Amino acid sequence: MTALTLHVELGARSYPIHIGPGLLQRKDMLRPHIAGRQVMIVTNETVAPLYLETVKEALIGLDIHVTMLPDGERYKNMATLETIFDNLMAASCDRETTVLALGGGVVGDIAGFAAACYQRGVPYIQIPTTLLAQVDSSVGGKTAVNHPRGKNMIGAFYQPRAVIADTDTLSTLADRELRAGIAEVIKYGLIRDPEFLAWLERHVTRLLVRDHEALTFAINRSCQAKAEVVAADEHERGERALLNLGHTFGHAIEAAVGYGNWLHGEAVAVGMLMAAFLSQLAGHLTKSDYQRVFDLVKQSELPTHPPPEIRGDQLKQYMQADKKVVAGKIRLVLLESIGQAYVTDDYPPTAVDETLRHFKVFD
Amino acid sequence: MTALTLHVELGARSYPIHIGPGLLQRKDMLRPHIAGRQVMIVTNETVAPLYLETVKEALIGLDIHVTMLPDGERYKNMATLETIFDNLMAASCDRETTVLALGGGVVGDIAGFAAACYQRGVPYIQIPTTLLAQVDSSVGGKTAVNHPRGKNMIGAFYQPRAVIADTDTLSTLADRELRAGIAEVIKYGLIRDPEFLAWLERHVTRLLVRDHEALTFAINRSCQAKAEVVAADEHERGERALLNLGHTFGHAIEAAVGYGNWLHGEAVAVGMLMAAFLSQLAGHLTKSDYQRVFDLVKQSELPTHPPPEIRGDQLKQYMQADKKVVAGKIRLVLLESIGQAYVTDDYPPTAVDETLRHFKVFD
Repeated sequence: MTALTLHVELGARSYPIHIGPGLLQRKDMLRPHIAGRQVMIVTNETVAPLYLETVKEALIGLDIHVTMLPDGERYKNMATLETIFDNLMAASCDRETTVLALGGGVVGDIAGFAAACYQRGVPYIQIPTTLLAQVDSSVGGKTAVNHPRGKNMIGAFYQPRAVIADTDTLSTLADRELRAGIAEVIKYGLIRDPEFLAWLERHVTRLLVRDHEALTFAINRSCQAKAEVVAADEHERGERALLNLGHTFGHAIEAAVGYGNWLHGEAVAVGMLMAAFLSQLAGHLTKSDYQRVFDLVKQSELPTHPPPEIRGDQLKQYMQADKKVVAGKIRLVLLESIGQAYVTDDYPPTAVDETLRHFKVFD
Repeated sequence: MTALTLHVELGARSYPIHIGPGLLQRKDMLRPHIAGRQVMIVTNETVAPLYLETVKEALIGLDIHVTMLPDGERYKNMATLETIFDNLMAASCDRETTVLALGGGVVGDIAGFAAACYQRGVPYIQIPTTLLAQVDSSVGGKTAVNHPRGKNMIGAFYQPRAVIADTDTLSTLADRELRAGIAEVIKYGLIRDPEFLAWLERHVTRLLVRDHEALTFAINRSCQAKAEVVAADEHERGERALLNLGHTFGHAIEAAVGYGNWLHGEAVAVGMLMAAFLSQLAGHLTKSDYQRVFDLVKQSELPTHPPPEIRGDQLKQYMQADKKVVAGKIRLVLLESIGQAYVTDDYPPTAVDETLRHFKVFD
């Protein structure tokens, strides 16, 4: 099958996303996006043994440097960022140097932020190697590192020159990671694409077995949905908030179980179910539509309930601390119907408690 | 006298620069530019005793926090940046928080960069308290910290919401600092405003005695010149390079004498003279125009020669290492005539050596 190319339209900062199998092998894919003569590949110890040589071969003849990061969210911090700067400086990288992120979301977030800041901005290319990164980080230009007191607190909006989402890289992805990515794919259907959600109900099992055609279709459709939202709202002032469907509950679950114990996508899956249930209580989503959401999450082999050990008061406390809280009120993304989301703080005052009880979360 | 307001036109990122005496005392000046309820003032130990209370009074009723930096370029680094992030997080500053820089160029550069990165960008206001910062940092959106291996290597282009250049703050400025600021003022006349240069020839002594009317005029005219250049070239790809008149020689002098021994503006003054002399050798600037530049620098009580101890080979080595060198060739900003600058690497091969000899710099 051939690759798809999606163009993210952002005026002077527009860029292509190439999606499909076998892209890293292709000589015509990566090289045309590199302007200067120097490349700093940022990757990690897990991804490098699998794909670094292939990428280096595609860049033969250029002055290639590598920054190898340890694997894990806990290294997404200022110290790691400084390591990248140190390596860029030590290699005398000039302002035409391309920073190339080869890895999942953590590698992309930190490499993108380094590219945004080095000499006030150098070209940046993403090669996301997880489904989550392919459907989430490919579009939106969000880059960041964590602060000890909060996730993604230090960062920049910075667009890549190109994204190469090679579905072959998903063959080495752990099942849990794949499913966590599917949670975000489902999200795009829920917030703005009922037709895509119906497609997922029929084909999600093809994603689970890593069918390249199904993956290419789903990644393209997800990126398209996100690109439309982002184009309308590049700096996250309005519509972009819809992308946070399930994230207020989800972040609270992640925090309550301790970061790293649940994957982000797993927490978002449960968070989306909670948001859907609350949408029902708010008089919007029908019972049968809620059931469709539940069944799809279940069919995707994602969790449908928070872990039994977390407490309701604890969860609510984390929800209050969420970045999306403005003036102390919990604003939530709810569903008007399948394929139509909205942001509100206008829901029955007891609805959050009732939702938590339904999901067997007690104080 | 009344204040002037200059509008920097950058589409959605346009902002005003208020210029004149007594602005910090005025209740209607600062407050209208602050949207949220939280303010983080970033200042330093030298400036704070002079102006912090006045600024705080203008912000009464808001939730005010202060980050106090030690004074000096050597603190313009990642560690200081992290201190600001720590303080923002510790004070639970949200994404509506305004970061307010109260101080000279170093405070502005680092506070602006912190504002650019905190939660991927929060509002930022500058109160520059040196002439150099008022005429240079007020326009252009350049923010940065230094890397141990290079100045301003880590940063962002980030525009303030407003700049308040109170000429009263120049009354406490050391004479040397004032004159260093005048060097940059002269630069604007030289690169694009012959009428302003002629005004400076008549009135530079009024600047030296800190006449508010003359200062207000000169700051406004300088910011206007810079704003026109920047508007045409926000991300420094073309015309903006003209702002570097005298800076390739100047940076090399700064590096050769050791950073901190000469002020940036002092080195730029000599650098501009060298560039003007070389322009003559390149067959452009007339001898009498060169003499005008020399006389103006002299009249401004700025140095006209590098310190005797620096060597030519050393200076050339630093010039080669300059960020503006592309593909190993030294590109220079030269003068076609007074008020018209251009960028070139097309000048007689012996011209740099000849210029150095003229300024009594020998290997």
